[in-house]
Amino acid sequence: MASKQDNLTAVLYGIEDLRLEQRPIPVPKDDEVLLAMDSVGICGSDVHYLVAGRIGDFIVKKPMIVGHESAGIVAKVGANVKSLKVGDRVAIEPGYGCRVCDYCKGGSYNLCPDMIFCATPPYDGNLMRYYTHPADFCFKLPDHVTMEEGALLEPLSVGVHACRRAGVQLGSQVLVLGAGPIGLVTLIVAKSMGASKVLVTDLLQNRLDVAKELGADGTLLISKTATEAELVKQIHELMGCAPDKTIDCSGAEATTRLSILATRSGGCAVLVGMGPPEVKIPLINALAREVDIRGVFRYCNDYSAALSLVSSGKINVKRLITHHFDIEETAEAFNTARHGLGGAIKVMIHVQPKDKNNPK
Amino acid sequence: MASKQDNLTAVLYGIEDLRLEQRPIPVPKDDEVLLAMDSVGICGSDVHYLVAGRIGDFIVKKPMIVGHESAGIVAKVGANVKSLKVGDRVAIEPGYGCRVCDYCKGGSYNLCPDMIFCATPPYDGNLMRYYTHPADFCFKLPDHVTMEEGALLEPLSVGVHACRRAGVQLGSQVLVLGAGPIGLVTLIVAKSMGASKVLVTDLLQNRLDVAKELGADGTLLISKTATEAELVKQIHELMGCAPDKTIDCSGAEATTRLSILATRSGGCAVLVGMGPPEVKIPLINALAREVDIRGVFRYCNDYSAALSLVSSGKINVKRLITHHFDIEETAEAFNTARHGLGGAIKVMIHVQPKDKNNPK
Amino acid sequence: MASKQDNLTAVLYGIEDLRLEQRPIPVPKDDEVLLAMDSVGICGSDVHYLVAGRIGDFIVKKPMIVGHESAGIVAKVGANVKSLKVGDRVAIEPGYGCRVCDYCKGGSYNLCPDMIFCATPPYDGNLMRYYTHPADFCFKLPDHVTMEEGALLEPLSVGVHACRRAGVQLGSQVLVLGAGPIGLVTLIVAKSMGASKVLVTDLLQNRLDVAKELGADGTLLISKTATEAELVKQIHELMGCAPDKTIDCSGAEATTRLSILATRSGGCAVLVGMGPPEVKIPLINALAREVDIRGVFRYCNDYSAALSLVSSGKINVKRLITHHFDIEETAEAFNTARHGLGGAIKVMIHVQPKDKNNPK
Amino acid sequence: MASKQDNLTAVLYGIEDLRLEQRPIPVPKDDEVLLAMDSVGICGSDVHYLVAGRIGDFIVKKPMIVGHESAGIVAKVGANVKSLKVGDRVAIEPGYGCRVCDYCKGGSYNLCPDMIFCATPPYDGNLMRYYTHPADFCFKLPDHVTMEEGALLEPLSVGVHACRRAGVQLGSQVLVLGAGPIGLVTLIVAKSMGASKVLVTDLLQNRLDVAKELGADGTLLISKTATEAELVKQIHELMGCAPDKTIDCSGAEATTRLSILATRSGGCAVLVGMGPPEVKIPLINALAREVDIRGVFRYCNDYSAALSLVSSGKINVKRLITHHFDIEETAEAFNTARHGLGGAIKVMIHVQPKDKNNPK
Repeated sequence: MASKQDNLTAVLYGIEDLRLEQRPIPVPKDDEVLLAMDSVGICGSDVHYLVAGRIGDFIVKKPMIVGHESAGIVAKVGANVKSLKVGDRVAIEPGYGCRVCDYCKGGSYNLCPDMIFCATPPYDGNLMRYYTHPADFCFKLPDHVTMEEGALLEPLSVGVHACRRAGVQLGSQVLVLGAGPIGLVTLIVAKSMGASKVLVTDLLQNRLDVAKELGADGTLLISKTATEAELVKQIHELMGCAPDKTIDCSGAEATTRLSILATRSGGCAVLVGMGPPEVKIPLINALAREVDIRGVFRYCNDYSAALSLVSSGKINVKRLITHHFDIEETAEAFNTARHGLGGAIKVMIHVQPKDKNNPK
Repeated sequence: MASKQDNLTAVLYGIEDLRLEQRPIPVPKDDEVLLAMDSVGICGSDVHYLVAGRIGDFIVKKPMIVGHESAGIVAKVGANVKSLKVGDRVAIEPGYGCRVCDYCKGGSYNLCPDMIFCATPPYDGNLMRYYTHPADFCFKLPDHVTMEEGALLEPLSVGVHACRRAGVQLGSQVLVLGAGPIGLVTLIVAKSMGASKVLVTDLLQNRLDVAKELGADGTLLISKTATEAELVKQIHELMGCAPDKTIDCSGAEATTRLSILATRSGGCAVLVGMGPPEVKIPLINALAREVDIRGVFRYCNDYSAALSLVSSGKINVKRLITHHFDIEETAEAFNTARHGLGGAIKVMIHVQPKDKNNPK
Repeated sequence: MASKQDNLTAVLYGIEDLRLEQRPIPVPKDDEVLLAMDSVGICGSDVHYLVAGRIGDFIVKKPMIVGHESAGIVAKVGANVKSLKVGDRVAIEPGYGCRVCDYCKGGSYNLCPDMIFCATPPYDGNLMRYYTHPADFCFKLPDHVTMEEGALLEPLSVGVHACRRAGVQLGSQVLVLGAGPIGLVTLIVAKSMGASKVLVTDLLQNRLDVAKELGADGTLLISKTATEAELVKQIHELMGCAPDKTIDCSGAEATTRLSILATRSGGCAVLVGMGPPEVKIPLINALAREVDIRGVFRYCNDYSAALSLVSSGKINVKRLITHHFDIEETAEAFNTARHGLGGAIKVMIHVQPKDKNNPK
Repeated sequence: MASKQDNLTAVLYGIEDLRLEQRPIPVPKDDEVLLAMDSVGICGSDVHYLVAGRIGDFIVKKPMIVGHESAGIVAKVGANVKSLKVGDRVAIEPGYGCRVCDYCKGGSYNLCPDMIFCATPPYDGNLMRYYTHPADFCFKLPDHVTMEEGALLEPLSVGVHACRRAGVQLGSQVLVLGAGPIGLVTLIVAKSMGASKVLVTDLLQNRLDVAKELGADGTLLISKTATEAELVKQIHELMGCAPDKTIDCSGAEATTRLSILATRSGGCAVLVGMGPPEVKIPLINALAREVDIRGVFRYCNDYSAALSLVSSGKINVKRLITHHFDIEETAEAFNTARHGLGGAIKVMIHVQPKDKNNPK
């Protein structure tokens, strides 16, 4: 680990302008902990801000620290913190609400209009050596869980939230559209919730191979020339039925439409991936069959379940990590994630020496 | 009432070809009752079949009896019927499922693929003197409830189903788009469920006046030239907040869009009215704020609640009826409903002399 | 109103030892407001602490300020408070959680193990001239709502929570056992949620008369000599059916048992009143008919709905108030409440001159 | 298999009077199938009727055929049956409702007051060579599923219903009291639904060994001398927390009480086992912590999920079967089940030669 004065930090100054620079080491407030960061995964949104400087109405207007799929070691605790102690290995849930609005008090803090979320403008992320965070949004990892798995709780929690929003349950027949990182964690979570069948689709066979490896009951390589009706027919034949839940993890207009058309009457189409702001959908098809359409915005009270899943040892979420880089190699890490080099699925950046804080 | 041989019946032979003709009096099966029909309301779908010969994939291919908003008198009971007796005044729930599929056994018979629904091709309706129906889909009216109110349970049940799908509850802030018959019953039901505020919108002031009379906390006359942003702003200002539930009872693309845009994060847009099969919607707006989109297909297990509401005497559903005709005047009745003549909201057809079976 | 130095306060020193004394005027923290208290209702628990010095494991070990059904005027705002300003008339939700535990983050702060609740040992109440409270647990009253109604939001919220726990909905048939203040607010709320029938029972006819006045569809004077089977039969006959929801607001073993026995299969018995710690119940009767048994612990996210109900003007919650006293008469007020003198239902204590802050 | 005239049948004539006798082969009605029975498991209730002649209000007043955990082969189909054909191997859901009452139409047919349930007086069971049953309550088994597994869907469905009633979900911490057949299937189902931890308790170590083998994360041998407080402490220590769901599968007063005391605030105690009609419970403990108490009456719409679970190959439900007998050995089979001879858990009776209809 670097010296106590070293706080190397990855800061996005604007489009295509990501810099490593020193920042002062922050001091935790009473309810916060100071974390020596260990592992930070690169998310699609990090790449998007680098390339486009914005996502929808979230615009990078001033230098912003990137990174929000993270785990670290408690280095200092604030005056009121009782739940953690120095040396604890924790996963960091990167967003927290105002704690006083109706959403926060009602158990839906992900919808809090004043939410502070790492690496979403105007808030800084945590790809840096030292970072402070509210203690109650840090989750202590059991000894046998690695720091990388801790970082992966972030995308995994998206999968948990998506499956909960979909109401996946024992015996559910689930269609997952898209086999990127979110599609894959959604597959893992759906199976863990008792889905009897999960079919995963994608445009790339190599991604489907990973899905198969992670437990997909079936996969479908989408032909770009197939009509909607053909795709629906293929899906129903492969599943032996219409899915009662479809979870779209790609966000294209085509998959949004397919989510509705393929789903069983009374079922539900959950849309995780976000694509264009305006989409043409086969609305009457959804309405007359009472197929509900539900979005997923991050996650909320899902980290514990995600952690319990990883901790159980029954899932292999580490399989998602295809590449490792040190924080000094951040530029190369982003390049790999951005262009999917070497079949990249999830790229992990190590702020501390790899495995330093992992179980032997 | 007509003689026991008379079974005058309104049959749609095709577009613009609605005829009154005699049909044999049917014999009830073991689980059915024979009903001497009393009151039948005209629904928008009845008119639509007359004008267009189809609604979506439902096509009038052979002569079809019209009418499905109905009430009648039990004239004969099948061998197994214990719940009803001759002379009982009943409201008729016009659709029933196969009773053996997963939907029927799971409590969602409205989604049964083999549903039999009055006046939806290929099934006959019940604008006729004598009609048979399963006894368990007939609801005995208390003495103080009129036959017309019994017939109105049908649209009222749509309102109940819509509000239940929306999850309207005590303190809900509800936006109802459209002040036609369905918009008005939805308003009535939402208030009855404890909604603290219901704002109703429409393009016609005279409909809004009725909404006001029926308990709307506010109304908004929609200007056709207003932008979406302006309408959202107006709605929020009039309500003092964003609605947590929006129920679109008009089905235009514009109101579908408004349903999403105006609703509070975490709320829900319920779409009752059905318009064009393909609609362009502001999808990211819905997803990123977790505004759920839900359709309403008729109703299911809602007649009892609708009846309890009418029976309570607290609502004035009869206010919806603006015109009365005898069955012999069916053509004129349809003409009135079709063109909204004389400010028509709900047109009621009397198969028996008006008030004959009503409480004195 | 008293001088700025005056902070007359009602402090319970132990069993039968309630004193009025001066306390320093507190200073609001950043997220708090200072309130000039106006109206404080006496709750059964206040009386219970006076008489017994404890409720279950909650024991008065040191002097405790009483009172928690309250409304006041904002006199000063903390540094971070934006939602309120000096002069605002507010109802005070008397309990708040730690904001960081799973219950608080999950929307169930009433179950927070570190909850701070007014006038529950070891926490002070607010029957005093000046009191500080978190701003987000103060609810601004509309101009037309009185301070007394604001204070009554507290018991009313118990009714809201009970009916929500019961799942009361449009068409519900509700049995309310006990016509004390909680039984009466539960009746009011159940009707407001669309219950089609509410039957209220009690041992005292004068309480049932108030229930009738407040909208009960039926009442039953319980005979102490009637058997359980007889009572169940009477209830079913009076309601015309078995209730799908029973809400026990008295807490006696007899009513707990009746809650189960009288409820329809698949229904639910909600127990608000708390009696002896150990109770003998007809368990198989509940299990084999899947009648759920649910408790009610205060309320949670219910104040807004309670306020919307009062604000609608449709309910007459003020009818509950039978007696008014000034804070200087606190001893007499408690005596009246304790012994139910003069048919006392709810006794209100005025910290400021009656009607001073009310709409003219 | 026996000749087409042979319909050997196990008939209970009264207490300790179970006879094998010939019965006529029944003829299926239009919606029924005739089944050549294959496997029938012995349930605790079968034994109870043999020993006591009754269970609660269900009294054996005339000779009753026993058996209801069954699978068979379709031998003939009724006129209207389209879902099955001769030769299909099916699991039999043994109870069906009237299809017309509110419970049946609402998706809760297990609460139908007119339910027909095999081997519950006055209705016959199906431990016999030929039996007729409604086709929609027969579930076609995939080729790789055995007839014994088909029969085991019955107790497994109880486990599914119990876990659904409990709301077991990803990350749940579940306590299962009792490691008999129902406790063991509940364990299997809870893990399959994503429970992160399941602790099973029993008075017998050999049962706990099976629980361990079937995936219990922990087991606790209950000491009969331990106090309630000690047991709660032990459970919390072993689980590392209080369970959010407790499912009592033994039905003793002691376990009912423990279900409440051990469960986390806001959690739920589901009671599957039924013991004495009257039970003394720590009611305030449940109410003040909002621990819900819910019964389980058989199952409802659960067979599909149970079948999908068995079909997945991930669970080893066959491990429950400890003994096999031919129908001619019915007396010995009952004796084994009744006294738990040879560590009996589930005793299976073969009406046809063992494995005759099983996958090779």
